[in-house]
Amino acid sequence: MEPSRLSAAEAAKRLEARELTCEALAAACLERIAAREETVRAWAFVDRKQVLEQARALDRMARRGRLHGLPFGVKDVIDTADQPTQYGSPIYRGHQPRADAACVALLRNAGALILGKTHTTEFANNPPAPTRNPHDPRHTPGGSSSGSAAAVADFMVPLALGTQTGGSVIRPAAFCGVYACKPSFGSINRGGMKFDAESLDTIGVFGRSVEDLALALEPLTSRPSPVFAGMENKPRIGLCRTPSWRDADEATQANLEAAAQALAKAGARVHNFQLPPGSEQLFDRHKVIMGYENARALAWEYFNHPNQIGAELKPRLDEGWQVGRDEYDALRAHASRCRGALADAMREVDFLLTPSARGEAPRDLATTGDPVFNRAWTLFGVPCVTIPFGKGPHGLPLGIQLIGAYDGDSALLRWAHWASRTL
Amino acid sequence: MEPSRLSAAEAAKRLEARELTCEALAAACLERIAAREETVRAWAFVDRKQVLEQARALDRMARRGRLHGLPFGVKDVIDTADQPTQYGSPIYRGHQPRADAACVALLRNAGALILGKTHTTEFANNPPAPTRNPHDPRHTPGGSSSGSAAAVADFMVPLALGTQTGGSVIRPAAFCGVYACKPSFGSINRGGMKFDAESLDTIGVFGRSVEDLALALEPLTSRPSPVFAGMENKPRIGLCRTPSWRDADEATQANLEAAAQALAKAGARVHNFQLPPGSEQLFDRHKVIMGYENARALAWEYFNHPNQIGAELKPRLDEGWQVGRDEYDALRAHASRCRGALADAMREVDFLLTPSARGEAPRDLATTGDPVFNRAWTLFGVPCVTIPFGKGPHGLPLGIQLIGAYDGDSALLRWAHWASRTL
Repeated sequence: MEPSRLSAAEAAKRLEARELTCEALAAACLERIAAREETVRAWAFVDRKQVLEQARALDRMARRGRLHGLPFGVKDVIDTADQPTQYGSPIYRGHQPRADAACVALLRNAGALILGKTHTTEFANNPPAPTRNPHDPRHTPGGSSSGSAAAVADFMVPLALGTQTGGSVIRPAAFCGVYACKPSFGSINRGGMKFDAESLDTIGVFGRSVEDLALALEPLTSRPSPVFAGMENKPRIGLCRTPSWRDADEATQANLEAAAQALAKAGARVHNFQLPPGSEQLFDRHKVIMGYENARALAWEYFNHPNQIGAELKPRLDEGWQVGRDEYDALRAHASRCRGALADAMREVDFLLTPSARGEAPRDLATTGDPVFNRAWTLFGVPCVTIPFGKGPHGLPLGIQLIGAYDGDSALLRWAHWASRTL
Repeated sequence: MEPSRLSAAEAAKRLEARELTCEALAAACLERIAAREETVRAWAFVDRKQVLEQARALDRMARRGRLHGLPFGVKDVIDTADQPTQYGSPIYRGHQPRADAACVALLRNAGALILGKTHTTEFANNPPAPTRNPHDPRHTPGGSSSGSAAAVADFMVPLALGTQTGGSVIRPAAFCGVYACKPSFGSINRGGMKFDAESLDTIGVFGRSVEDLALALEPLTSRPSPVFAGMENKPRIGLCRTPSWRDADEATQANLEAAAQALAKAGARVHNFQLPPGSEQLFDRHKVIMGYENARALAWEYFNHPNQIGAELKPRLDEGWQVGRDEYDALRAHASRCRGALADAMREVDFLLTPSARGEAPRDLATTGDPVFNRAWTLFGVPCVTIPFGKGPHGLPLGIQLIGAYDGDSALLRWAHWASRTL
């Protein structure tokens, strides 16, 4: 098999056994990028020479950790000391940070090779990145972590970092047919990441299997990688259609029911799960919190470079400045109560099962799709994993989303592994 | 009166009435710095020419807001686009950020003049800054916001920004005899601030009166400045000696009791307040959460520049890397429960009264003092205001600390104003 097509776990095994060199793996990824980038447009920056030099250096040195030699794409809202970081904005054209973000330093310390910076929408907000869906370039890859999702899906890189404030990790992963995890809020240090909305922004990972996600998450979260073997117990699953169920298209509704039936057939106890009273508000009002915080996070850009802020983002920031502090505080307090109520309700289940997005990736490059099946979970702060399952009407991938209890990330990854094996 | 000695509120009034120019006020501050900096050592960076140019530009333009022309000191862990930002570390010598931190952009948008960058301890951690206590240069000014506290106390600048992770705003303010507020966690956007410990770091302000704090906080928090007039009701005060009461020296204990008696005499109902069961742990275990997060926040520096990390900080980071994720997660969960219990308990009072520090500033420049009376409040996320009141055995200032309910910052500022007037 082409080294670029290997799962991260398989590549790691071969790297450790010296059956594969870091250089050969990096070269294979670069070759894939060379062949496909014109179509997919996943990368904001790749320095071929630098990558190969770093790969050779990794080949020469003692193994630094389990990620030794594994190439990563890094969403371009995350600082890198040796590669420009431009936040998807002309305001930061050519910007070279002084330091790596904490998460990048953690990956490098575990031996990872940063292959390049992946395209983000403008400041991880809505205006689309140039990236296209690798399954059909007429379709959006989703956003805001557009490049990371597309690069992993297109075998340009086995693993990538993204960030989620609304649905920016789970949705593009589902649209591109890959696995992704948005961990519990507070799992991965955000130093050196450009804020979108501070109380929501969560760094997450993309990969081509649950094991691959776990491999990447271990050094990022300091949580030991879960043991996947020996899961004899069957899960209690809460089928959570959410207040947005009618926004999901028919294929997505049928697909989720099919997944639930297949898991039930494999022994899971599936029952309908009602979100705690009041939490339906979060699906919509999330955007008020995000708008308030995003306006402030981009205060310098807004006041000093208004003409370099995109025509789609500018009015959103204007709106964010209109949100009153009282409304914002009241919503945060409400979200905090909902978090407590959800934690209580989730004691009865091992995970929730819900759509990853409304449907397959829209055939429209002017949108990144709708985060309606993601926003509330981000605001709840709970861990989310998306698994590719099923196809939409145009034959593009669909995803199912598994939701765990707050800080129950390891358990969720184990159940996601079980579910992906079962399906 | 020398313009540099004016309160911010008074200076703002004169600036608005055109009885004082921005340039004259800035020049007076610069003159004071020129006279005293050799002794106090509050400033990491001041560009006299740049400051006067910006002041003249403010004099020429229409008023931007209530802070128009008011000089601010900015702790040097907060990015400024026109002044180097060095985080108190040789690793960042000469580092020039691309953008202003969000909080700096908010201040400038309200018309503030950034006079310069104030000294911080190394990465806002413990190793002392070069700053000395303006009341007696043999004594520490406290830390980590050492320069901001000293500069405001020494009439070098009417207002300054600091950050608190343990006790880095309230303690230095008390040691230097000025007012300060650490607002509720989440009050001021942290974009462009170097993280110490992400779940704790809170931007705060220093001033020479409660009105001055309120003036600075308004654009930073988007909370309307509280109305101080017409406070006929008298507060219910919870006298909170905390589990660390025996760490306070005699003068501080007597001083707090005297303050409580004086406030009671003015009509306040004072009773003893017991912290909710379990929360005594937070006073000590805070450091575990801080250590875990600080190690990760400085991952790039730790892995790439270990020899430029100070001899005091390095072993602290080593310790932080030793904290297990399980222990960290369990402590955060415990803190979250304590937050809920404190919110319930605080419904019975308007604010808590507690010491700002163990005593006056130690006569020791090798320490910044002990944050034992601050750490738990930072972890609770509740707003804190320190008011200068009383003197220690060496004649240095003491402070009393008022603690409000989470997001009850405006009410706390009103009570702090009442208390400072009453005392």
